[in-house]
Order: sequence, then structure tokens, then C-alpha cells
Amino acid sequence: MSTVRLWTDAEAEAAPRVKAVFDDIRATRKSDFVNNFWRALANDPASLERIWAGLKEIMVAPGALDPLVKEMIYVAVSAANGCTYCAHSHTAAARAKGMSEAQYGELLAVIGMASQTNALASALQVPVDPQFLVGE
Amino acid sequence: MSTVRLWTDAEAEAAPRVKAVFDDIRATRKSDFVNNFWRALANDPASLERIWAGLKEIMVAPGALDPLVKEMIYVAVSAANGCTYCAHSHTAAARAKGMSEAQYGELLAVIGMASQTNALASALQVPVDPQFLVGE
Amino acid sequence: MSTVRLWTDAEAEAAPRVKAVFDDIRATRKSDFVNNFWRALANDPASLERIWAGLKEIMVAPGALDPLVKEMIYVAVSAANGCTYCAHSHTAAARAKGMSEAQYGELLAVIGMASQTNALASALQVPVDPQFLVGE
Amino acid sequence: MSTVRLWTDAEAEAAPRVKAVFDDIRATRKSDFVNNFWRALANDPASLERIWAGLKEIMVAPGALDPLVKEMIYVAVSAANGCTYCAHSHTAAARAKGMSEAQYGELLAVIGMASQTNALASALQVPVDPQFLVGE
Amino acid sequence: MSTVRLWTDAEAEAAPRVKAVFDDIRATRKSDFVNNFWRALANDPASLERIWAGLKEIMVAPGALDPLVKEMIYVAVSAANGCTYCAHSHTAAARAKGMSEAQYGELLAVIGMASQTNALASALQVPVDPQFLVGE
Amino acid sequence: MSTVRLWTDAEAEAAPRVKAVFDDIRATRKSDFVNNFWRALANDPASLERIWAGLKEIMVAPGALDPLVKEMIYVAVSAANGCTYCAHSHTAAARAKGMSEAQYGELLAVIGMASQTNALASALQVPVDPQFLVGE
Repeated sequence: MSTVRLWTDAEAEAAPRVKAVFDDIRATRKSDFVNNFWRALANDPASLERIWAGLKEIMVAPGALDPLVKEMIYVAVSAANGCTYCAHSHTAAARAKGMSEAQYGELLAVIGMASQTNALASALQVPVDPQFLVGE
Repeated sequence: MSTVRLWTDAEAEAAPRVKAVFDDIRATRKSDFVNNFWRALANDPASLERIWAGLKEIMVAPGALDPLVKEMIYVAVSAANGCTYCAHSHTAAARAKGMSEAQYGELLAVIGMASQTNALASALQVPVDPQFLVGE
Repeated sequence: MSTVRLWTDAEAEAAPRVKAVFDDIRATRKSDFVNNFWRALANDPASLERIWAGLKEIMVAPGALDPLVKEMIYVAVSAANGCTYCAHSHTAAARAKGMSEAQYGELLAVIGMASQTNALASALQVPVDPQFLVGE
Repeated sequence: MSTVRLWTDAEAEAAPRVKAVFDDIRATRKSDFVNNFWRALANDPASLERIWAGLKEIMVAPGALDPLVKEMIYVAVSAANGCTYCAHSHTAAARAKGMSEAQYGELLAVIGMASQTNALASALQVPVDPQFLVGE
Repeated sequence: MSTVRLWTDAEAEAAPRVKAVFDDIRATRKSDFVNNFWRALANDPASLERIWAGLKEIMVAPGALDPLVKEMIYVAVSAANGCTYCAHSHTAAARAKGMSEAQYGELLAVIGMASQTNALASALQVPVDPQFLVGE
Repeated sequence: MSTVRLWTDAEAEAAPRVKAVFDDIRATRKSDFVNNFWRALANDPASLERIWAGLKEIMVAPGALDPLVKEMIYVAVSAANGCTYCAHSHTAAARAKGMSEAQYGELLAVIGMASQTNALASALQVPVDPQFLVGE
């Protein structure tokens, strides 16, 4: 179904750069499961390494936002961009991080309301209030 | 700059349905400031009432998600949809609700990373892993 | 295939808030068919009620626009947003409201042409002619 | 403000292919006004000719849809795509074709509602009901 | 799966306008394969003719850009717009025109990076540097 | 105009991590000009470093695609995403890398045509031809 071959574990074993990333995904997530996104990216080891490193830095390393909050933000962007794969994978990830059905319901409500007012503000071309401006 | 006239307070005073919503916005937010989005929507009182009621129910009423988390999700959707007005207004709202610059930096990092992997998953048309599916 | 369970009629029978909306959908549409969108939304009764109430007010209640015209506008937005489910459901709804194949052909032609000139105007960043401006 | 030079009438006079299109725009619209979109496209005469010919065929020639309906569909797509220039130019065009403020209010309401349910269906990845499918 | 019937070759044989376009697609591409996009568009012969003529003029006729470069640009736009069909069809077309896996890997990397910085610039609403402006 | 303060050179001088990136931007581009995007990102040094490192790896390091081709792909994605800042900055960058007006005209034509057929394929929900599929 994809535009590229999805790498099997056997193929990854034979390619050191791919294997290193798959191993780190497994170690970081404490799970043997490597999802299809990484198996597709494996066709370009440089991208595989760069994207995983960025995702790990942003989503896994401790910071100012709770991991679940970051995952819900990821779901919101994925829905707004209409990404089928990402809506599925990050909703599953948010649930794995503890998202309750009540939280998911509110997340969806905010996504829907924001999409509605985004479209209205774009249709109306509402001028930005001076009170909202920060940079010059 | 907009496609419709922005209602002044004087005009709102003379239109009971608009005045009622503007009054409720001020009372709810405990601020005299009514931003341009509502002044543009005022041209269609039915929409003004419906959108405000929905926004109040979702964003103001207590629920399972923290108000600041909801506001950051709103910013994320607005950025993904490329809405100039909404990026400004909801970033200001998130700051008013206590978003620190460190939190904003992480919010932006997640928005950027999600947009990157969304585009890659859409380009690659990665098939959804069966593990992610819930409904039939 | 969805990220949530789709509610069956039997489940809806046991949940008064969901049952009330499903009943109203059936009564309003004069059809026993409740499509999957509502069965998915049923997981969050507050959203189910709010979205259905808004849709009914906008799409069903009589107004200044013909119901078929509103449905074709809905198809146009759904195509622009790349929403698979919505393209299918609202094209079917437009046909149920009498859209001819000739009308559908023209609707598609407008969607395609608008998407082309939207992209060109965004690429070229064409400045808005002063003649088009209304609000301050 | 644009990424290309906007052609003046004097420049168009000296370029036969551009002049021919500008003349046809004026004759077709029965107005001396040539808006900036065409002045930007003039930098590439082949595109100027092709886009104008397509727009004239779709938007001006008589067909199965009312000219105002087509213009409102154009506004809807432009709002969904977040195109600043197009939201302004096609809202002005719809008004010139007789769109009332009540009709504009309903157009906006449909755009907003569709954007909300599009985002929810994409977030939920609602499976398409078999009843909606036509082609194999 | 589509919202319209896909035309078979037998049906096209009986419809002169459709047959003429299908014949030209085959002759232009030196292949008997007519992909589903054209079989769907065939329901509206005017659109079929106009879209094919435009595509042929832009993508097939010799010009200032290499055919493979144009095809990769097409893939990039299709990914950004989240178009499932187009991501598949134009990636296949790019490969047929000689795109190597290394080139595809870099194309994907640029698509991902651009999507990331697009989202950040939209979130931050970065003001355009005066150095970048061309038109008035 | 932005949602954050734009860093001046004086401020960057006093912040080693920001200064290091600004210095590398100048050295890499052989120009004293640091555009606003980086001055906005400077508010979050970790993002500034990560985004610049990624951009440098993808857009500057030699690879399988010509630098100008990569820049035109960047323009295409930016137009499809409706990013005002990015359309301006990357069109300027493409010109700086030698893009002729004829090449820009063709780039725009491809962007416009792709956006048109993307919207049509999404509206029609054209099923992917089996010939286009690669991964399982």
C-alpha cells in the first residue's frame, strides 16, 4: 500500500544504520514493536536517523510539557493535516501514555472548534488585534 | 482588511443579540476587551451566538483537560491550518493562561515535528499498523 | 478502522443521550439510516449533541440558501480539506437532495479551478487589491 | 509584496499575448478593472492564457449551476485553503453577483461547520459507510 | 470506492469525446495504461478534455524544467495536500521517468523539512524580510 | 507582527548558543544576512540548533538532487501549505541559486496543476490503481 518497501526485521539486521535506529526505538520505548513509519523511512538511513533523533529529543526527553500533553498536540496537528497514518499512530500513543476517553473527547472537541474558527477567520480575513502582536 | 465590517461597541449596543454575546464574552473573560473575531462574526447574530456558545462550552467550562492544555492544542491546530488571526489570538490567550516561554518552545517543537512526519507519512502512504486500529 | 468504537443501535438504546440524538437524526432525515460519523461521535455525548444541533441548525433549517447549494458547498470544503469520509458522505447527501451529474461536474470543475488559483495566489503572494477590502 | 512584478497597463500594451488576455478580461467582465492576480500571472503568458481560459469556461459560460452558486463554492474552497487573496477577491465577486449578507452568513456557517466535521472525521478516521460508495 | 463510476474502455469506445482523450493519453505516454483518475474524470467530458490538455501542456511539452524535476515537484505538492491517489500516481510517474531511490530519499527529506518550517513560520507568524519582496 | 520577539545581532552576541548558529548561517551562506525566521527561532535555542542542522544537512550538503531543484521543491511545498513567509523566503532563495523566470513560470504551472488534480482526486476519491502500489 505504501510507495516504498517496508523493511522487515531480517533486512534491518543486515543494515547497521537501520539496525541501530530500530534497536534504539525498541530500547527507548521498552517494546519490541517497531511501527510501519520507521520501516518505510528505513529506505533512507539518513532520514531515518535524523527524524528519529528529532522525535526522541522532542517527544521523549523530559521538558516543560507533560509527555501526554505533547502526544495530544501531535494528534491535533495530525488531524488538522488530515494524515491517516498519524491520526491512528498518535492516538494509540496518547492512549498508551494514559489518555482517558474523557480527555480524548475534549481533545476532539478542541480540534473541531479550532478548525471551525480557523476557517471562519480565514474566510473573513479578520485583522489581527494590535493587542496580540509581540515581535516588531 | 476584513471581508466584513467590524462592529463597534456603539453598534453592538443597538443590537440586542449582539450586545448579549459581547456582554457574556466580557463577563466570562473578566475583561472589557472584545477581539476582532467576534466583531466580524457579529454581522450574523445566529453564528455569533452558536460559535460563542460552543467555544464557551469547550474552552471555558471545567473538564478533563487543563485550560492551558486546551489553548495550546488550539494553537497547534491554528498553525497547522495556517490561520494568521488564530495563531496570534490563541498564542496570546495561552500566554494569558500562564504558558511559559519554555512551554511555548516545546509546543512549537511538537508542531514542527508533527508537520514533518505528517508530510512524510502522506508522501510514503504508510499503511496503518493493525495494532493501532480500534473500531471495526 | 476508526480510532474509536462505532456505536451499534443496541448500545445507543441503552444510553439516553445518544439515543435521543440518533432518534432525532432519524426523524429529521425521515430515514432509519444513521451513518458512521454519528456512531463514532457517540463516544462523547456532549460533542454528539453539540455537533448535531449545529448541523441541524445550519443544514436543515430553512434559510437564505437552497439546501442543495449548502450541500455542494459542504462537498467543496471537504474536498479542499482532503477528508475522505466527508467527500463520500456529502456527495451522497448532495445526490439525495437532487444534484444532477451535470451539476456535480460543474461543482468539481469549480473546486479544481479554485484549488489551482488558490495555490498560485499563495505562491505569488499577490497583494489584495484595495477595491476588495471592506472592514477597516 | 508579491514574489513577482505586477504588470501595469502600459507594460501590458507592449506585450500582445498579455494585452489580449487583459482585453478579454475587461470585455468579459464589462469593467475596466483588471485585478492583481492577472497582473502577477502576466509574467508567464502561457499560464495567464491557460488559467484565464479555464476560469472563463468554468465560471462565466452558462451551465448547470447559477453563477452566484459557483462563486460561493469558490469562496468556500478559498477559505478552506486559507488563501488570503482569494478569500477577498471571490467574496467581492460573489457580492458583485448579488450575494446578500444573509446568504454570506449562511455560506460562512456551512464553511465553519464543514471544517469542524472534516477535522473530526479525520481525527476519528471514520470508515466510509458502504451506502456512500459508487465506483467499484 | 470512488464517488463516481470509473469508465471502462468499452464505455469510452462509445463516447467520442472520452475516446479521443483516452487515445491521446495512450499515444502521448506510449502505453496502453489509462489510470483511474482519467476514468473518473470521464464522467464530465469538458473537465476531462480541459484537465488533460493542461497537464499535457505543463508536464509533457518541453520547457525550462526537466520532466523528472516537474514530476518531483508534483509529488511534493501532492504530499503537502495529503492526496492519497496523487502521492501514489506521481511517485510511480517519477520513478518511470528515472527517479533513483537516492533522489526520492532527498525529495522526501525536503518535503519533510519544508513542512516543518512552514508550520513553524505560520505558528510564529514571522514577518517577511524586506529583502525578499519583489512586487510593490 | 510575530508572536515572539525577533532577536537582534546584539542580543545574539550575548547568547553563545544563538551566536554559534547565527555565525554558522553566515559562514555557510557566505552572507551577513540572517533572515527573520532564525531571529524568531532564537527564542528556543534547542529548536534553533536542531532546525538549522537539519536544513543544512538537507539543503546545503551535496547529494543526489541539484540545490536549485531542492529549493524549487521547497517553494512548491510552501505554496501548497499557504505559508506566506516561506513562499517569499524560498522563492528569493531559488532566485539566488539561479532560477530563471522561465523556470519559475513552469514551477508555478506545476504547483497550480497539481493543486487542481489533488483537489479533484480527493473530491472523487479515486481508488489507487494496483499498478502504483509498492509496499505490501
